[in-house]
Amino acid sequence: MMNETLLTEESRLRREHHKGQYDRETVYRILDENPFCHLAFVKQGRPVVIPTMQWRVSDMVYWHGSSKSRIAHGNDNATVCLTASRIDGLVLARSAFEHTVNFESVVVIGEAQVIEDEKHKASLLEAFFSHLFPGRWDALRTMTAQELKATAVMGLPLHSASAKIRRGPPNEPEEDRATRVWAGVLPMAMQLGVPIPDEFNTMPEPDYLARLRTKP
Amino acid sequence: MMNETLLTEESRLRREHHKGQYDRETVYRILDENPFCHLAFVKQGRPVVIPTMQWRVSDMVYWHGSSKSRIAHGNDNATVCLTASRIDGLVLARSAFEHTVNFESVVVIGEAQVIEDEKHKASLLEAFFSHLFPGRWDALRTMTAQELKATAVMGLPLHSASAKIRRGPPNEPEEDRATRVWAGVLPMAMQLGVPIPDEFNTMPEPDYLARLRTKP
Repeated sequence: MMNETLLTEESRLRREHHKGQYDRETVYRILDENPFCHLAFVKQGRPVVIPTMQWRVSDMVYWHGSSKSRIAHGNDNATVCLTASRIDGLVLARSAFEHTVNFESVVVIGEAQVIEDEKHKASLLEAFFSHLFPGRWDALRTMTAQELKATAVMGLPLHSASAKIRRGPPNEPEEDRATRVWAGVLPMAMQLGVPIPDEFNTMPEPDYLARLRTKP
Repeated sequence: MMNETLLTEESRLRREHHKGQYDRETVYRILDENPFCHLAFVKQGRPVVIPTMQWRVSDMVYWHGSSKSRIAHGNDNATVCLTASRIDGLVLARSAFEHTVNFESVVVIGEAQVIEDEKHKASLLEAFFSHLFPGRWDALRTMTAQELKATAVMGLPLHSASAKIRRGPPNEPEEDRATRVWAGVLPMAMQLGVPIPDEFNTMPEPDYLARLRTKP
């Protein structure tokens, strides 16, 4: 289980590969490799968390939504929490208590900035596409003014971002190792399948889909 | 992009397989198949969202954490939002605007109940293990009173849960179909790898790991 309490000095040392507070390059890498994220905001005093996608440009993280949706406005204030995380495996220890999960995550809390300038908005959306599907943006028809107006883009500075990573086998007290139960890691990873063209497609499969397949 | 605005009647009809508000059986299935979730709460007026795991017993969803952690207390109030979601694929349309994601999710907002009774807590933790790894609980050493005390279990009734599912190819206006760009779905799924025993393991690989591999 993901408990971090009752940490004696010994157990703290056993956990030394489970650290928070990483350098900026680690925060950037985790965000760049994990476009799916969860965004939380407060509405009428209650927390709301929704799945969405994020992308990074320089020292800012961005997401988008409908201009009319609650992602963009209608919240109690502009403070949001964006969490991008990836599960790398289940860690099965010899006691229930030491079971845990291998993962990496970035948490950013701050004041969301709504990008008002239409040109800036379009260039940020292009950056989102270019990160996921290099070259695709130019092959799509241009966004209409109405579509751009209907799309809200929000950003959050990364200066307060923190990363957390847990890797490796179970950490458990030596005395538990005699317990006769399998212990180790069940690895997990998001895999991309074979692209399914829609019924109207006449175009060859673009290179970027294959690249996404080989390195998710 | 995940926009749902500017919906004319025609586009609303094109989106008919993108629905919210499912029956209870769908909510249960999504929760049971997707143990990883995100939990949001409000702390000093600010939203916080963290990745964790959930499990369902009857019409309640549960999660656990350290008794000392902010999952259990220290929040502005008991209201939390638990969101379990799964990404099934990226949907590449012929316009940027109609790009979207195939997914399913359950969102539950409500007042978290802290399970105080130690016996009830232990039986809920056993249910969590039994759901993921049938038979494993009995092979582990028994949780100590100290470990049980250090573990907080929280629950949320499912009566206000709502599910959302998006499946299938891009939906786009007919006039976009002439755009010369690949369109379709890039499927994604969480895959389980080959279990890695730790260096002290002497036990054979349990059946439940193989079952998890074939049906994540």
